[in-house]
Amino acid sequence: MATASQPAISRFPVPALSDLPADIRERIVAVQEKSGFIPNVFLALAHRPDEFRAFFAYHDALMDKPGNLSKAEREMIVVATSNANQCQYCVIAHGAILRIRAKNPLIADQVAVNYRKADITPRQKAMLDFAMRVAFEAYAVGDEAFATLAQHGFSEEDAWDIAAIAAFFGLSNRMANVMGMRPNDEFYTLGR
Amino acid sequence: MATASQPAISRFPVPALSDLPADIRERIVAVQEKSGFIPNVFLALAHRPDEFRAFFAYHDALMDKPGNLSKAEREMIVVATSNANQCQYCVIAHGAILRIRAKNPLIADQVAVNYRKADITPRQKAMLDFAMRVAFEAYAVGDEAFATLAQHGFSEEDAWDIAAIAAFFGLSNRMANVMGMRPNDEFYTLGR
Amino acid sequence: MATASQPAISRFPVPALSDLPADIRERIVAVQEKSGFIPNVFLALAHRPDEFRAFFAYHDALMDKPGNLSKAEREMIVVATSNANQCQYCVIAHGAILRIRAKNPLIADQVAVNYRKADITPRQKAMLDFAMRVAFEAYAVGDEAFATLAQHGFSEEDAWDIAAIAAFFGLSNRMANVMGMRPNDEFYTLGR
Amino acid sequence: MATASQPAISRFPVPALSDLPADIRERIVAVQEKSGFIPNVFLALAHRPDEFRAFFAYHDALMDKPGNLSKAEREMIVVATSNANQCQYCVIAHGAILRIRAKNPLIADQVAVNYRKADITPRQKAMLDFAMRVAFEAYAVGDEAFATLAQHGFSEEDAWDIAAIAAFFGLSNRMANVMGMRPNDEFYTLGR
Amino acid sequence: MATASQPAISRFPVPALSDLPADIRERIVAVQEKSGFIPNVFLALAHRPDEFRAFFAYHDALMDKPGNLSKAEREMIVVATSNANQCQYCVIAHGAILRIRAKNPLIADQVAVNYRKADITPRQKAMLDFAMRVAFEAYAVGDEAFATLAQHGFSEEDAWDIAAIAAFFGLSNRMANVMGMRPNDEFYTLGR
Amino acid sequence: MATASQPAISRFPVPALSDLPADIRERIVAVQEKSGFIPNVFLALAHRPDEFRAFFAYHDALMDKPGNLSKAEREMIVVATSNANQCQYCVIAHGAILRIRAKNPLIADQVAVNYRKADITPRQKAMLDFAMRVAFEAYAVGDEAFATLAQHGFSEEDAWDIAAIAAFFGLSNRMANVMGMRPNDEFYTLGR
Repeated sequence: MATASQPAISRFPVPALSDLPADIRERIVAVQEKSGFIPNVFLALAHRPDEFRAFFAYHDALMDKPGNLSKAEREMIVVATSNANQCQYCVIAHGAILRIRAKNPLIADQVAVNYRKADITPRQKAMLDFAMRVAFEAYAVGDEAFATLAQHGFSEEDAWDIAAIAAFFGLSNRMANVMGMRPNDEFYTLGR
Repeated sequence: MATASQPAISRFPVPALSDLPADIRERIVAVQEKSGFIPNVFLALAHRPDEFRAFFAYHDALMDKPGNLSKAEREMIVVATSNANQCQYCVIAHGAILRIRAKNPLIADQVAVNYRKADITPRQKAMLDFAMRVAFEAYAVGDEAFATLAQHGFSEEDAWDIAAIAAFFGLSNRMANVMGMRPNDEFYTLGR
Repeated sequence: MATASQPAISRFPVPALSDLPADIRERIVAVQEKSGFIPNVFLALAHRPDEFRAFFAYHDALMDKPGNLSKAEREMIVVATSNANQCQYCVIAHGAILRIRAKNPLIADQVAVNYRKADITPRQKAMLDFAMRVAFEAYAVGDEAFATLAQHGFSEEDAWDIAAIAAFFGLSNRMANVMGMRPNDEFYTLGR
Repeated sequence: MATASQPAISRFPVPALSDLPADIRERIVAVQEKSGFIPNVFLALAHRPDEFRAFFAYHDALMDKPGNLSKAEREMIVVATSNANQCQYCVIAHGAILRIRAKNPLIADQVAVNYRKADITPRQKAMLDFAMRVAFEAYAVGDEAFATLAQHGFSEEDAWDIAAIAAFFGLSNRMANVMGMRPNDEFYTLGR
Repeated sequence: MATASQPAISRFPVPALSDLPADIRERIVAVQEKSGFIPNVFLALAHRPDEFRAFFAYHDALMDKPGNLSKAEREMIVVATSNANQCQYCVIAHGAILRIRAKNPLIADQVAVNYRKADITPRQKAMLDFAMRVAFEAYAVGDEAFATLAQHGFSEEDAWDIAAIAAFFGLSNRMANVMGMRPNDEFYTLGR
Repeated sequence: MATASQPAISRFPVPALSDLPADIRERIVAVQEKSGFIPNVFLALAHRPDEFRAFFAYHDALMDKPGNLSKAEREMIVVATSNANQCQYCVIAHGAILRIRAKNPLIADQVAVNYRKADITPRQKAMLDFAMRVAFEAYAVGDEAFATLAQHGFSEEDAWDIAAIAAFFGLSNRMANVMGMRPNDEFYTLGR
């Protein structure tokens, strides 16, 4: 996948597309056709087909489901918590997706560095406060945290969505850091 | 599922078995037949069938796969990181599994509270040191951490396994805390 | 004290009962008669008789005195703060005592891992919130913390009791960790 | 300075150029002529002319002086420590400068999120390790830290430079966060 | 004890000397005769006679015993850990004692603020490094920490002494902060 | 500057007064005439004349300007945040200045160790709470923090002053720790 002069996209072996099980290859090809390139997370995780399938099933269950959180809001959660976890791949790749979803070229960098000062609504700041508590002190999340969300119009099901996105990308952040997963060059400028 | 006098097993609605999609119901029934009871995580997560399927697919991909980590060692990772994340369900349920897998009634409480002082091998302590770094500072995991593991005989693939288990249960810990997921009474005494 | 095949109960020398000053030996024998075994803390601390005497005098002054905190509540403080301090001996030994005092086989593991989700009253959660602040940020405990306790019916004297138990076991936790003090096997199943 | 439809660039009053002391106005006009726009930090700090003068004198003494650190390396220090301090203005503005100085469109986002995984040399990573220690635990910086720098070819004077840049931008980060200083839109795409 | 114009020495009731049990009164009178004033800790803790007796028995067992740590070194441990715990009484009162024991008017303030930069020996810095680990991460103190001490000539018994002093004053720090215990004015200038 | 028997005042070279640029020498001589000695910060920073000039210009802009904060209050900010940053020079030197400015021999040690328990007003405690947030979590300082200050009569301009002093001395603390800057012996007893 990578030419000799390019840095590795993972410290683990990256399979050739042709060696992958058909379902995984098909998903990757579909993404490539839609995006114009293959995001490295697909190739890096394909080293472990069963984990790949579970990972993307989980991803889709959270990010593609209907619900009260807009697609841009879901990406805000990813970007804010991923920077707090210092995950290069997730901030850069999902920053691009956030810019596109929000149709706002500035928002991703703002949310990544300090969402409290970003051009987002008080409701969105409350959403990110909750997400950050899930990421860093989930043990203390209780009635009070749900009540604060409710004051901003979030239902209990919305709270689950926020928590699950923060928790799932916490998994993703940890794996990407351990793997040294490299963001594709394309992400840096998408949506700017 | 819960009688009136019992505390709720989740702050979210818990579906009746009969209302569940067949594949989920079948998995739950199979677990019940094997264990003699239904671990609450199955019922609590069944509120979201797609997430349930992804969660258990991921779980199985990490915990049931072949590999150099014994089943008891995988449970040690779960127990040590889950107590650090203050997740009641995961410490108590997987503590039971650890006692059974390790055929050691003392090990789970030891590993939960302070694995550095537990009756485990130096290799297992190195494994848990790595798991804890993944759980709390994955951003700083690099060549040095892999080299320390290698000194204890762990391959790069083993490192992926350790990291993935710590990261996946980090997701589980966060969701269980947000949901207020209650461990079944049965877990407390299993394997003691 | 320990047979050759057993792990040491302390990294420091453990005196033989027969070598101990009479008052210490008598206290230990009395405990043994009441409990059926000698908790290792008695043997491990007997290495330093003067510290032994002061330690147990302090212990008794806090744990056996009359007061508004029930004996089970005092043990809750020990268990919650000791797990936060990662002290194996104190969580496992006092977990056993808590189960017995509370006549509740589940409570010790719940309180150890995350008291906020335990089967205890809001008053007891407020008591443990205060104890945790004493353990980790006593410098910031002021009028506000006492007022919160008062809302739950705790007097100023009760606050002293809570603080003193958290502080005293903070000392115990630190010594047990430095000494590598090992909990007796008996504690793991007592009261379950 | 800002049109009605634009968010404020500071929570404090922002003076009109025409109201500023001549020396400050001249500096701002010079920057504007060179850059094509006025970076908001100049306008926001101009609210306090004496502090403005001292701030930029300090800035110039560190960032424009000769020395062994390249201009790009100095900006790396700013970007890495500013993201750790969650300072939106500094990460976004100095990220732009870093891209330009390094002639590398990817480097700023990499260094901001996790410099340990960035496309930089081991020497530069050691420089940033030192800078991060200055930012977060300067009290523990001693001979050992200087020795590690020396192994990478940094002199004691270079260490002063690294420390002073990290410390000065720590001041800048704190003020920008308190002021709610807003990065100019122009910075987001410069050098990409 | 306190005149109307003086701040309280404790938020809890302070008994009159004449109301105290004879043994406690005698100890206090002896201290007063030796020091020329009654350190407030004696009066504040006398509110609880049993705890008073245990506290000072523990204190004496650690601070007055023979051993390889000089009296000044023991006070260094108290001062360094007490400032880290933000305990006003202990830093100010034991700072005075440290100045007297060390016959050095500068040392207490140096050790309190940052012992790593104090006019003490490398051996004493290693002693304080160990004490700080006991105070803040006793769970991780193991063979490696003892080995580092041994390189500086400290025996295992010395390690116990260091740990016990850090742990005991951790208790004292927490109680003094909760009680709002006020240092006597005399301490500020003693030994300067 | 230092005789052979005295510890170094900085790990970096300290210039002779006669080698300094005239403006710097004149400032130092003026300080010496006023104070009776040369505070080491002047000599240590004179190693870098441009940084010296910017540092003291910033210092004077914050500490000598008119405003609602008294000179003693400004020194309280320095002392409280500098101890939290473990900066020996700043606590000891500015502690002396605080004692003099406040005409109170006790206040500096109290504010350094735990300002929450010091003999200062609730307004001053609110000022120091804000300063500490600026020092340690400026990213989270927002409307709420300004509103709390306003309840104690602090204007937005006062908030800038508090923040700027905390931020500027954060720079100073970091440099003093990296340089190993030594407080003059004279400071320890001034104003006691």
